[in-house]
Amino acid sequence: MKPSDRSRMHRTPNRRMRPRGSAAFEIIYGRNPVMEAISSGSRTFQEIMVLSQNYDVFSRSARDIPIRIVQRDELEKISLSLNHQGIAAKVSPYRYATLGDMMDLDALVLLDSVEDPQNLGSIIRSAYALAGAGIIIPEHRSASVTPTVVKASSGATEQTRIALVQNLRDASRELKKHGYWLVGLDAKVQEDIRRIPRFDKIGLVLGGEDSGIRPIIERELDLMACIPMKGSFNSLNVAQAAAVALYELVARR
Amino acid sequence: MKPSDRSRMHRTPNRRMRPRGSAAFEIIYGRNPVMEAISSGSRTFQEIMVLSQNYDVFSRSARDIPIRIVQRDELEKISLSLNHQGIAAKVSPYRYATLGDMMDLDALVLLDSVEDPQNLGSIIRSAYALAGAGIIIPEHRSASVTPTVVKASSGATEQTRIALVQNLRDASRELKKHGYWLVGLDAKVQEDIRRIPRFDKIGLVLGGEDSGIRPIIERELDLMACIPMKGSFNSLNVAQAAAVALYELVARR
Repeated sequence: MKPSDRSRMHRTPNRRMRPRGSAAFEIIYGRNPVMEAISSGSRTFQEIMVLSQNYDVFSRSARDIPIRIVQRDELEKISLSLNHQGIAAKVSPYRYATLGDMMDLDALVLLDSVEDPQNLGSIIRSAYALAGAGIIIPEHRSASVTPTVVKASSGATEQTRIALVQNLRDASRELKKHGYWLVGLDAKVQEDIRRIPRFDKIGLVLGGEDSGIRPIIERELDLMACIPMKGSFNSLNVAQAAAVALYELVARR
Repeated sequence: MKPSDRSRMHRTPNRRMRPRGSAAFEIIYGRNPVMEAISSGSRTFQEIMVLSQNYDVFSRSARDIPIRIVQRDELEKISLSLNHQGIAAKVSPYRYATLGDMMDLDALVLLDSVEDPQNLGSIIRSAYALAGAGIIIPEHRSASVTPTVVKASSGATEQTRIALVQNLRDASRELKKHGYWLVGLDAKVQEDIRRIPRFDKIGLVLGGEDSGIRPIIERELDLMACIPMKGSFNSLNVAQAAAVALYELVARR
């Protein structure tokens, strides 16, 4: 092996293995995602790309951001989606909050192993709309805030604080020290969610699509509760369960 | 043009334009969909196809149904999905209920122009799990119960009564004659859903993803209500809104 080969070997994997967060920019797409990113100031914009029929609408909102008209097939390639609604934008990467940033919020949602990006996006949207809640997700065994998640959240990612933590158990302990009551949702337990008292600071904990809440996390929780069901059925989808629980525990009280 | 060409012209479009309901069989896929179809007796089974590692589990459940081991790539082709969970089945087409069949149910969900199959599936799942509710969808401008919807509902379609009606306005009038109170959900109205009284027979009406409830349907409704929100945000996804409304109006009371 020549020295030049060796240095190439080192360069190539390095470039490929660049960690997700370090990209210089990313592409978000869809009407609400782009509009929420503009209005919240959550991102630095490099450029907006629109179909010609959307130029007038977005050029009014975008003010100082360069805006370029593109063809439909180009927009599909840029957004890697058919679901772009005629607009995409080249923006700075998603900026996560730290756990410390979350402590003034009354309601938080902790997600243990929610891996489907559509579910993560739906939960972020409901959490923000129903409860103004922040979201805590672990770095591993979880979907992170990709452009697909931004779209599935209808742009709620841009208005919501989302913390990415190394270890969800440590985060749970930290939250309890700061006065949060941690309530886990599980279809298999007896305690009815309607009987859970009102807490000033609450962390709702939800498990993944297949696995539920892991025992290592469950041990940290103050209470477990279930949603009352009528059908003889295998429980709700995690995004529907999240919406109902946030409504019961936060929104309706 | 030769006579033989002409007859071919006639044959081809006819075959292509066969109405959806008239297929001799369809393919459903996924663990819960197939298991719920077996346990409910909702379908006539021609054959079950599984990956070899699933043979033992499903051959116990399937009893008299022929079961065949297939390769992964074959299962993907059969199910037209990567989401088959190692099982598919060739079964009789979905059997819709009539409006008359629904009248003994306490809770119904009427969907005006819900076109996304994932949303329709999620709503059917929540409606069944939370409220044991039946579903009413119109023939036009709506998703129907395709295998994608069966999968998205996690097989709840096989346990739930779903009526496909020609005209949703006529169906609404018929339901009111039979004692149902019709409550529409709309983020833009003032009346809070928590103030809606308890009704013995209720029909929850939801509009499509973009359009909401059409005026021609809204005129038939007894009440309109909204879900209370915290975030300054453009409302919930229709499937999340359905889950919350069914919880508030049926499950928790």
